[in-house]
Amino acid sequence: MNALARHLLLELKICNEEVLDDLDFLKDCLNEAAIQSGATVVGESFYRFSPCGVSGVVNIAESHISIHTWPEYKYAAVDVFTCGDDVDPEAAARLITEKLGAQSHSLIEVRRGIMEDSQVECAK
Amino acid sequence: MNALARHLLLELKICNEEVLDDLDFLKDCLNEAAIQSGATVVGESFYRFSPCGVSGVVNIAESHISIHTWPEYKYAAVDVFTCGDDVDPEAAARLITEKLGAQSHSLIEVRRGIMEDSQVECAK
Repeated sequence: MNALARHLLLELKICNEEVLDDLDFLKDCLNEAAIQSGATVVGESFYRFSPCGVSGVVNIAESHISIHTWPEYKYAAVDVFTCGDDVDPEAAARLITEKLGAQSHSLIEVRRGIMEDSQVECAK
Repeated sequence: MNALARHLLLELKICNEEVLDDLDFLKDCLNEAAIQSGATVVGESFYRFSPCGVSGVVNIAESHISIHTWPEYKYAAVDVFTCGDDVDPEAAARLITEKLGAQSHSLIEVRRGIMEDSQVECAK
């Protein structure tokens, strides 16, 4: 099966709750993860919610990395959506898991855009 | 099982390829989908790639809606990530599916942030 993209769905539990509420830290973390994975950052948008929690997306030339945090549950949902062979989404997932101090995590990989063509190449 | 968020992974195939390469159309489409689902838009970022394809994210107070398109394959990957009972992510998915003229689609729902607490409420 040929897929256009790899999508990692990362569940991070028992994280450092202070970090989960720190917009600047999370922004740096996702940007560093993008670079670490070999991706090219083309934009970002982050928001801090009341009373707590941060949502953020780093747009990369190879798709996106997003995070939504619930500090009150010490939980973060992270998505690493990449296309192309030059990017290592697991490297991004590992770095974010470490930086958030997650004591428990799970990761599901979904192949997106499964095509019948025998030669599928990422045009992005 | 109590989950903090619902995440719809939408695979759209045999779409209108002109629409898939039209950044302004897709921006309007995702914003309309967000509103239709009852979500509050708090930001957006869209990029058009060379030679073709668009990536975009609409940030909503209840999480995000993202799209990555491959016009050359008439394919789009859409994610609708929402939290809270006041948002109807299926409404967003239906509208985007229609607007892109997808002749084939599939949808997977992933419950994100499954917690052991009996009462889980979205704080965002």
